[in-house]
Amino acid sequence: MTQIQTPVSETRMLAAFAAPNSGRPPLWLMRQAGRYLPEYKATRAEAGSFLDLCYNPRLAVEVALQPLRRFDLDAAILFSDILVIPDGLGQPVRFEEGVGPVLLRLEDTVDFAQLSIDRMLKHLAPVYETVDRLRAALPRETALIGFSGAPWTLATYMLEGRSTREFHLGKYWAYARPDDFALLVEVLVEAVVEHLSAQVRAGAEILQIFDSWAGVLDDWGFRRWVEEPTRRIVAKLKTRHPEVPILLFARGAGARHAGLAARVGVDGVALDCTVPLQWARQEVQAHTLVQGNLDPVILRIGGAAMQRAVSAILESFAGGRFIFNLGHGILPDTPPEHVAALVNMVREASTNR
Amino acid sequence: MTQIQTPVSETRMLAAFAAPNSGRPPLWLMRQAGRYLPEYKATRAEAGSFLDLCYNPRLAVEVALQPLRRFDLDAAILFSDILVIPDGLGQPVRFEEGVGPVLLRLEDTVDFAQLSIDRMLKHLAPVYETVDRLRAALPRETALIGFSGAPWTLATYMLEGRSTREFHLGKYWAYARPDDFALLVEVLVEAVVEHLSAQVRAGAEILQIFDSWAGVLDDWGFRRWVEEPTRRIVAKLKTRHPEVPILLFARGAGARHAGLAARVGVDGVALDCTVPLQWARQEVQAHTLVQGNLDPVILRIGGAAMQRAVSAILESFAGGRFIFNLGHGILPDTPPEHVAALVNMVREASTNR
Repeated sequence: MTQIQTPVSETRMLAAFAAPNSGRPPLWLMRQAGRYLPEYKATRAEAGSFLDLCYNPRLAVEVALQPLRRFDLDAAILFSDILVIPDGLGQPVRFEEGVGPVLLRLEDTVDFAQLSIDRMLKHLAPVYETVDRLRAALPRETALIGFSGAPWTLATYMLEGRSTREFHLGKYWAYARPDDFALLVEVLVEAVVEHLSAQVRAGAEILQIFDSWAGVLDDWGFRRWVEEPTRRIVAKLKTRHPEVPILLFARGAGARHAGLAARVGVDGVALDCTVPLQWARQEVQAHTLVQGNLDPVILRIGGAAMQRAVSAILESFAGGRFIFNLGHGILPDTPPEHVAALVNMVREASTNR
Repeated sequence: MTQIQTPVSETRMLAAFAAPNSGRPPLWLMRQAGRYLPEYKATRAEAGSFLDLCYNPRLAVEVALQPLRRFDLDAAILFSDILVIPDGLGQPVRFEEGVGPVLLRLEDTVDFAQLSIDRMLKHLAPVYETVDRLRAALPRETALIGFSGAPWTLATYMLEGRSTREFHLGKYWAYARPDDFALLVEVLVEAVVEHLSAQVRAGAEILQIFDSWAGVLDDWGFRRWVEEPTRRIVAKLKTRHPEVPILLFARGAGARHAGLAARVGVDGVALDCTVPLQWARQEVQAHTLVQGNLDPVILRIGGAAMQRAVSAILESFAGGRFIFNLGHGILPDTPPEHVAALVNMVREASTNR
């Protein structure tokens, strides 16, 4: 793993954390590198499996750069997956077409004890090399975002073995065996810290933590398994990398977004599509940066529907600390010209202000 | 359809709408009649298909009464399904094992014009007969709840043809063709009013409107396709049946729950599992009755985890207008003894107050 201290770029993205936007807001899109782009599909075919692509620095850099060649975006994001952490820790992951990720389930605390952070850092060396090469390939005005899954979301996959809608096994551990579950979460807190820290050392300038399943827990569970582990991760990262802003995407957190950034110590929150705009302006953006939250289905629809939705988001958020984004990842069947139109709409916001 | 004016029972449920609870809160459970009960499975096998059961008054009454024989619950709910409305309107519905509901999709506005409310009221005569027989079979202290799907949720099934996670077709109509979509919603507003009104005439004392997919819309969509149609439904029902309380279950509405009851005119809101308790007490229960919101996965887990979750809900809500319930329906693999334990926990709340 390279450890070059790349100079921090002076980007619109980084400026957004410091002060309300002047002119247009910065813009990037979750899953901006992905299956909606024909050139992605070509590179993916060359790579082999999805994880082969994630672990191939040359090709992973290529797919991360593809959307930037087409669209005037303010950030690149490492091309990777949240499940490289369990894969690196020693719980092999594969991606099946039509199913998604498949893992051999962790079944008991003895399985937790087999997980190794040293192994992860070695296994994920190609990921950190990708970050390094990507930073070198990007212009100074383009920020580089590193990311990780959060412990709760990672733990659900590791215990359920695949995507689920009900989280029986994850919740069984979380609620019925909290002391045992805490052992797994403890490993994951350390793993996330080391994984994100390695990305910063390789050149990531902003970090985003994805807690995709934060919205399926009750009050106690959210505090114990979303807020507490994330707060500890952020505190450790801030000690090592005080200059790096951290975003939290706690999908489905709903009214829990109020005060969330302060409770966990992050510099901004990414909002999913269902967070109401006026409420978020008053209860969230008044206290921290917000990122979001166009519905990717509306991006796919495009046209007047998208124009209306984008205008509503800009009117609500563009006067404060704000990064324009989707509320969830781009859908595979999104026409790329809709993305181009979206970028134009957001850029035109500067001339209207 | 019978039109006997059954005398309104003096129930703990109805009292809850009028004033904060004294003693323990009333209690019923979404899907309290269902597959977790062996006696349900036996009756279901006797009936034939799921819809055969819904349209068989003798057997539908039987399954609605089954949980009341086991557990001391304060309400029965009509045994039916939200999709009897499209089925009645002329868009046949079937339920496939492992898939769920399957409908021949509505594809254009000419299909909307074929839907007939007269046909629905005739087709659903067995449903209203079930309500009538159920009211006659219930003791006075047990309230009878009627219900319906809401227009947005019904429309998604009618346009998508089955359950979906992304709602491409429903959102396409809702956002790209709103004037055409409004034609379908208009039919559904009338259908829901007539369906619920017929249930009231047959003996339903409380109504619950299920907008299961309310949480997938942005601000504009939520106002236009959840709040506006529901407000019109409620206004029409209040003219006809001013004495009947109406609950809205807008699943996933998150921070939009604040002020929602006042905006649509309902007498209470059913909260899903992800609504935080203290927030809901201040922003929702201060203004209306709340119902909810134990996670059915925690009911399935039972034990100390359930005790902790139930206590948290009771501590937050039991001092105000409140009906104890789950935040979503009982899961099929829930041990019935966990339901018995839950009922005991809620009843014990009276001795602790």
